[in-house]
Amino acid sequence: MSIAHERFEGKVVFLPGSTTSGVKTIHIPSPLTLQRGGVLQDVVVAYETWGELNEARDNAILLFTGLSPGTHAASSKENPKPGWWEFMIGEGKSIDSTRYHVICVNSLGSCFGSTGPISINPATKRQYGFDFPEVTVEDIANVANLAMHEMGIESVHTVMGSSLGGMAAYYYALEFPNEVANLVSISATAAASPFAIGVRSLQREIVTCDPEWKEGHYEVGKGPLEGMRIARKLGLTTYRSADEWLQRFGRERVAERADDADLVDIEFQVESYLEHNAKKFVEKFDANSYLYLSRAMDWFDSREHPRLLSKQERLPFRSLIIGISSDVLFTVEEQRDMAARLAQASDCVSFIDLKSPYGHDSFLVDEDAFVPAIQVFFDAAA
Amino acid sequence: MSIAHERFEGKVVFLPGSTTSGVKTIHIPSPLTLQRGGVLQDVVVAYETWGELNEARDNAILLFTGLSPGTHAASSKENPKPGWWEFMIGEGKSIDSTRYHVICVNSLGSCFGSTGPISINPATKRQYGFDFPEVTVEDIANVANLAMHEMGIESVHTVMGSSLGGMAAYYYALEFPNEVANLVSISATAAASPFAIGVRSLQREIVTCDPEWKEGHYEVGKGPLEGMRIARKLGLTTYRSADEWLQRFGRERVAERADDADLVDIEFQVESYLEHNAKKFVEKFDANSYLYLSRAMDWFDSREHPRLLSKQERLPFRSLIIGISSDVLFTVEEQRDMAARLAQASDCVSFIDLKSPYGHDSFLVDEDAFVPAIQVFFDAAA
Repeated sequence: MSIAHERFEGKVVFLPGSTTSGVKTIHIPSPLTLQRGGVLQDVVVAYETWGELNEARDNAILLFTGLSPGTHAASSKENPKPGWWEFMIGEGKSIDSTRYHVICVNSLGSCFGSTGPISINPATKRQYGFDFPEVTVEDIANVANLAMHEMGIESVHTVMGSSLGGMAAYYYALEFPNEVANLVSISATAAASPFAIGVRSLQREIVTCDPEWKEGHYEVGKGPLEGMRIARKLGLTTYRSADEWLQRFGRERVAERADDADLVDIEFQVESYLEHNAKKFVEKFDANSYLYLSRAMDWFDSREHPRLLSKQERLPFRSLIIGISSDVLFTVEEQRDMAARLAQASDCVSFIDLKSPYGHDSFLVDEDAFVPAIQVFFDAAA
Repeated sequence: MSIAHERFEGKVVFLPGSTTSGVKTIHIPSPLTLQRGGVLQDVVVAYETWGELNEARDNAILLFTGLSPGTHAASSKENPKPGWWEFMIGEGKSIDSTRYHVICVNSLGSCFGSTGPISINPATKRQYGFDFPEVTVEDIANVANLAMHEMGIESVHTVMGSSLGGMAAYYYALEFPNEVANLVSISATAAASPFAIGVRSLQREIVTCDPEWKEGHYEVGKGPLEGMRIARKLGLTTYRSADEWLQRFGRERVAERADDADLVDIEFQVESYLEHNAKKFVEKFDANSYLYLSRAMDWFDSREHPRLLSKQERLPFRSLIIGISSDVLFTVEEQRDMAARLAQASDCVSFIDLKSPYGHDSFLVDEDAFVPAIQVFFDAAA
């Protein structure tokens, strides 16, 4: 066993409460009671912003993230490093920071500055770890809403997000319809599918079977790095599409392979890609945060939200729901279903079945497909 | 952590050289040099049969299996337990044992009686374990051909198989075209796709990361049972289809859940299904055999077999290639490609894009779809 699948020796760079430049935090009122009964004190929400809030305080775009990204959606003066949606957000871009005040929030339970398992529990003065209370998508949305109020933003121009963020945005709009003018939900679902639950369950099990998980009370920066690396690889097999991999990797071999490499060592390019990308992730993401946010997605089921079923109330906001034809994790039928449910209770719902080969990750990588779709929506909203 | 994901405590029932009743073994000439350079002594092939070989010795159906089944494809007098293709093979069935002599072989490298990692290495008197030489799909086919010759069968009526078995059958027909009258290859591929390689690579890594794997030299019956259980779950996520799971499990919860169950314990039916099925597998299958046969599939690439490219020679056998519309692991495009390649070199190729919701596993479970497809082929061949 020579070149591959070595035990991970990298250094984990996140630290409790650490924030990179440009990240701000805001306290929300506590104690905060969560949907499944947990109570938190001293809750903070980490966020980054682009553009200025106007005098009417009505040009905010609230952006939720997927499971793994932090608040750094785009470069800024404070942090010029390109963000995870660099092609979408900025001066003159589809989400135009000369026009809008974009606010990207880190989800409750995550590890990039918002309160989560790596935070210090005020009651014990130690990190919560796996004692952190159970978090739901609804909590993530509710906490972001409280943060908006703390910022003096009573209503947002648009709430939006992709994947987990698209679920949170969908719920946010349903829960606070009079505080939202527009909703954009991308590659999300109204209710987690058994396939997605199965995959995520397996990822969690891979993490918790790593003895370094220690029932969730590992030392942060150590922990189940091996399990996280493998769980991330499993994620990667569902984030793109088999067709994309066929075009991209085919059956190409890696250039260098040790003479004593054996059948379980890396041989194909696709194996090397998985290894490389999974290692990057392990350096950044806390295992417990992963478990909490992963399960939050499983639990999500907004299909019977009272505002979707109401015969009296009409939802006042405009909606754009986007699905990707090649997404195997959150299939386009799920987004079609989200849109159909909204359309029962709303007069202005658009649905796009976007053709992209990049699967669930399309919104992160397919600039050509996404920029026009988002551009048209914001042009019409302006 | 209460009801789920416990460390596996079951008893592993396979034993080196053990055979259940009805399983026969045949020695093939040794030493046997394998495609990737390994040399084996004392090679045996385990097999079961149904029906009688006729006087002309031309009614044999050679059946290769997928990665995990043994030779017990159907019940018999010697072993009345239902087999893995019970609905297909037997008196008066599509593969009619009153007409044909069906021979189901255990693949070289497997753990159900044919020579493999759990066999005793004659040179050391100890089990090979991970010292077993690398095995390819081509070796599996070649060894079965030698077994046919040892049985006095110079030519088979049909060579057939599904998944790994469909790859072996495809290669067998290409390599021994004058010893084959008909080929049936189901849910296979002419060359492993990067998606399938990625998934299998991850399964292997899950197994080899289990400390009980011990670099492949565990005590058989112990070994990486935890890793095997999780790897099998990953397999199960690719063997069916997301749609089938949606119909079958929806978002149903398990009936009983301990009061102290937490977010990583089993809650959804789909999680319980994965757990139940994976545990069954771990009881039956050797981890090293799994690694060898899994990698053999990755290596397989018969797209440039000389007989497919030959401008002179025409392949004399009839072929039926079957793909399943909902198969995500071996997509129907791959079977279409197999058929197209055969059609370049052959005058009688049928391809069926079979509609079934059961994904890669369809041939095992969808009697209504498969029985007529196979029936028609054998009726025409009779």
